[in-house]
Amino acid sequence: MSKPKTAISPTRDDNYAEWYQQVIRAADLAETSAVRGCMVIKPWGYAIWENMQRVLDDMFKATGHQNAYFPLFIPLSFLQKEAAHVDGFAKECAVVTHHRLEAGPDGKLVPAGELEEPLIVRPTSETIIGDAFSRWVQSYRDLPLLINQWANVVRWEMRTRMFLRTAEFLWQEGHTAHATAQEAIAETMRMLDVYADFVENWMAVPVIRGEKTAGERFPGAEQTFCIEAMMQDRKALQAGTSHFLGQNFAKASDIAFLDQGGTRQHAWTTSWGVSTRLIGTLIMTHSDDDGLVLPPKLATVQIVIVPIFRSDEEKPRVLEYCNHVARDLRAQRFADRPIGVLVDERDERGGEKVWHWIKKGVPIRLEIGPRDMEKDALFVGRRDRAPKDKQSVARAEFVATVSATLQDIHDELLKRARAFRQAHTHRIDTKEEFYAFFTPAKVAENAPPPIHGGFAMTHFSGDVELEQKIRDDLSVTVRCIPLDPGEAGICPFTGKPSAKRVVWAKAY
Amino acid sequence: MSKPKTAISPTRDDNYAEWYQQVIRAADLAETSAVRGCMVIKPWGYAIWENMQRVLDDMFKATGHQNAYFPLFIPLSFLQKEAAHVDGFAKECAVVTHHRLEAGPDGKLVPAGELEEPLIVRPTSETIIGDAFSRWVQSYRDLPLLINQWANVVRWEMRTRMFLRTAEFLWQEGHTAHATAQEAIAETMRMLDVYADFVENWMAVPVIRGEKTAGERFPGAEQTFCIEAMMQDRKALQAGTSHFLGQNFAKASDIAFLDQGGTRQHAWTTSWGVSTRLIGTLIMTHSDDDGLVLPPKLATVQIVIVPIFRSDEEKPRVLEYCNHVARDLRAQRFADRPIGVLVDERDERGGEKVWHWIKKGVPIRLEIGPRDMEKDALFVGRRDRAPKDKQSVARAEFVATVSATLQDIHDELLKRARAFRQAHTHRIDTKEEFYAFFTPAKVAENAPPPIHGGFAMTHFSGDVELEQKIRDDLSVTVRCIPLDPGEAGICPFTGKPSAKRVVWAKAY
Repeated sequence: MSKPKTAISPTRDDNYAEWYQQVIRAADLAETSAVRGCMVIKPWGYAIWENMQRVLDDMFKATGHQNAYFPLFIPLSFLQKEAAHVDGFAKECAVVTHHRLEAGPDGKLVPAGELEEPLIVRPTSETIIGDAFSRWVQSYRDLPLLINQWANVVRWEMRTRMFLRTAEFLWQEGHTAHATAQEAIAETMRMLDVYADFVENWMAVPVIRGEKTAGERFPGAEQTFCIEAMMQDRKALQAGTSHFLGQNFAKASDIAFLDQGGTRQHAWTTSWGVSTRLIGTLIMTHSDDDGLVLPPKLATVQIVIVPIFRSDEEKPRVLEYCNHVARDLRAQRFADRPIGVLVDERDERGGEKVWHWIKKGVPIRLEIGPRDMEKDALFVGRRDRAPKDKQSVARAEFVATVSATLQDIHDELLKRARAFRQAHTHRIDTKEEFYAFFTPAKVAENAPPPIHGGFAMTHFSGDVELEQKIRDDLSVTVRCIPLDPGEAGICPFTGKPSAKRVVWAKAY
Repeated sequence: MSKPKTAISPTRDDNYAEWYQQVIRAADLAETSAVRGCMVIKPWGYAIWENMQRVLDDMFKATGHQNAYFPLFIPLSFLQKEAAHVDGFAKECAVVTHHRLEAGPDGKLVPAGELEEPLIVRPTSETIIGDAFSRWVQSYRDLPLLINQWANVVRWEMRTRMFLRTAEFLWQEGHTAHATAQEAIAETMRMLDVYADFVENWMAVPVIRGEKTAGERFPGAEQTFCIEAMMQDRKALQAGTSHFLGQNFAKASDIAFLDQGGTRQHAWTTSWGVSTRLIGTLIMTHSDDDGLVLPPKLATVQIVIVPIFRSDEEKPRVLEYCNHVARDLRAQRFADRPIGVLVDERDERGGEKVWHWIKKGVPIRLEIGPRDMEKDALFVGRRDRAPKDKQSVARAEFVATVSATLQDIHDELLKRARAFRQAHTHRIDTKEEFYAFFTPAKVAENAPPPIHGGFAMTHFSGDVELEQKIRDDLSVTVRCIPLDPGEAGICPFTGKPSAKRVVWAKAY
């Protein structure tokens, strides 16, 4: 039997990494640019980010945060204020050293006007924002200070992959200062919950909330918390992080306040961020061998209408009906906004158009031709179902229930992703089983490794060296120590006691 | 008679430049940072930008544009593709030359990992976007291509001033490609009109739409159009520009398409932008000697309620009433969104609070105490009127008419700015009068120049050298050749014929 034809080649099973690139290309989300490691986010991809921004920004404001904007450049001396911090970022900094160009001896333009102090293009903004906070915070009355910034950041990664790891990326970074450690920790956890809420309830991606081990902490943080998702190749993807920074950055930047008793104290700070990486998360969680699958709450076009006609005579009548349906649908609301509907009036064959929108991930497709019009019905295709699995639905019924249908698609995507994660999450209690779990089957040379592994839940005694050895052996790391309560046990690697199981996986 | 006391010192008349800085400080809009020429935009200032973005973004989308995102860095070779373009920006480029930091001989971190080709932090994105467009445009079917980007850009200015001229600033840059010159020119004018519409109808700032002379054109453009506003020191401020780029950038980046006849042609492109400079425009147009005056459509807090009570007993009753009024007001809409209302419950004296919000520019202040409650009335202060000019208005009447009141404040601000501009715009027909108009009265050494001049409308024969001489003599330039029809005449400087009067002014 021949393999079913798919719109994306190769399929996930054949070559997952290449499938990912081809989904991005087929949906026209982004492309590589002439600048090493930097991508161009095309309109269809950027629209996802705009929707994410809108929802997250509302969530941040609802939790009392205000937006502000800080300089793109960080003086080298600022980055060095926190020792672990500069160590963490020194190897991947874009450095500005000159402030103009002038003609060199051969007439070609060369950098000129050397700066007294090099400037770093921000890889993250703790130090430059800390400098501002040191001016803004004087008294306990100035706390808590709850600030967010939407910005671009640069980390000079050597191996890049669109959306997942690029030299420049877009993100938001929350930065807050508090009077007590307790309040700062509460803020750290509150924002982790906001992220988990967003990723599950808007992106339809299930996540595990947990804490990072010391080796995976943000450079300069006391504690790093994260949400971890499982991609369809069973690797983990860190979708967002929230850091409790203790007083490290407050001491480095001298963020201090007079408390109610008149004593000068250093503040306790947090930072938290999500980035355009979330788009990669979304692609890798839901898309299939026919291309992108957009979760309905983040799709700008939630419904596409493809008019089907065989003659120029039929065309105006069909278009009129389609636009009438579109108007009725736009009057409906889903996820706090009017439903986004596009009537595809391009001069293309109907079948071409249908596949175009399948690859672009639009949640619902309506094909409407003269025969449907006669019945006052629509031919409905859902992106969470097979391309050929289409149904005729009475127009009035479809319009009346469209919001519920979009919610059903969301629920179905989330349920599927949960089931997938559950199917590939295993409790493992011996070292042998653990090593076997993460060792791929042998394949031909040059062939991509087959999909294998998943989340291994083991007890772990927390030894840093052991974690490093497992990383060296298998490229597997502790993704997080889950926040959910667990039972104590014995570490299968050391035989020492362990408070709870941790999540091990290969990761993006 | 002593001068009236004002919240801002110095006043506009005493020292306009310093007054501007003090308005920004008193309203807590922004501050200078540790990075030369870069500012920190504080929450109250950034909220204005967010509101501007929201409205402009809707306008761009309504005119068919889509957002995308392009790399922050531009390879030096790209910038050089268009000769006039690189000449225009070479003197003010931030140049990235290295991609990591490492410990030098003395242990201090120094730039390492020199790049093969230096990267320029974008001062504008014509060349990097042109590179993408050269891939996106293949056929006439791909045109028009209508793209916008929200981004930060860097121009290494030597003399900076908050919001008006900073090394890094935030902006949007539209970039479009078209099949014909005619369509590209139509787009250039359409977006100029969008800007004029926004600045007048949302910012309440009247503008003159016009074309720049050759000397003031965007580097690489065929024609540059602009909107020019008059500030309260009678200087001109260019609030937005829209460029017809001809085929210059299309040829430089090879943006070409097969037309319907199968012939390969270069596209015609445009670009257009407004920036955080608009916030400076807004401050300088409306603010007074008591601080910021926010145009109601761009204020996040449109109404502030200051509860007035003399005892802890009165407090809960007053707060309850205030919050009740706030709820009723939030149910009203103005300028397409719910009205923004803040109840100032801080532990401060009522008078302190009132002045706090005057300096922050909130359009309407409501003072509510037990006596107002008895009458079921509110004590209403409008920011476009004197601080002491307050009126008691029945609660129900105020709520029912609040949207009209906000519109009235907008209308009043626009009317006032128009009248100011008209009062300081003069038709001038002799060289002597022109020179006298722009020569300030003598003042003590070190004193700031007194406010003088304005817009001088003269005929002009268009000689580049003459324009340069006037610039050298008076620091005055042709701000624009207005688009509105004018009558022909004689240039007072050369005696040559002139098609219409142009606008001369000193400018920001």
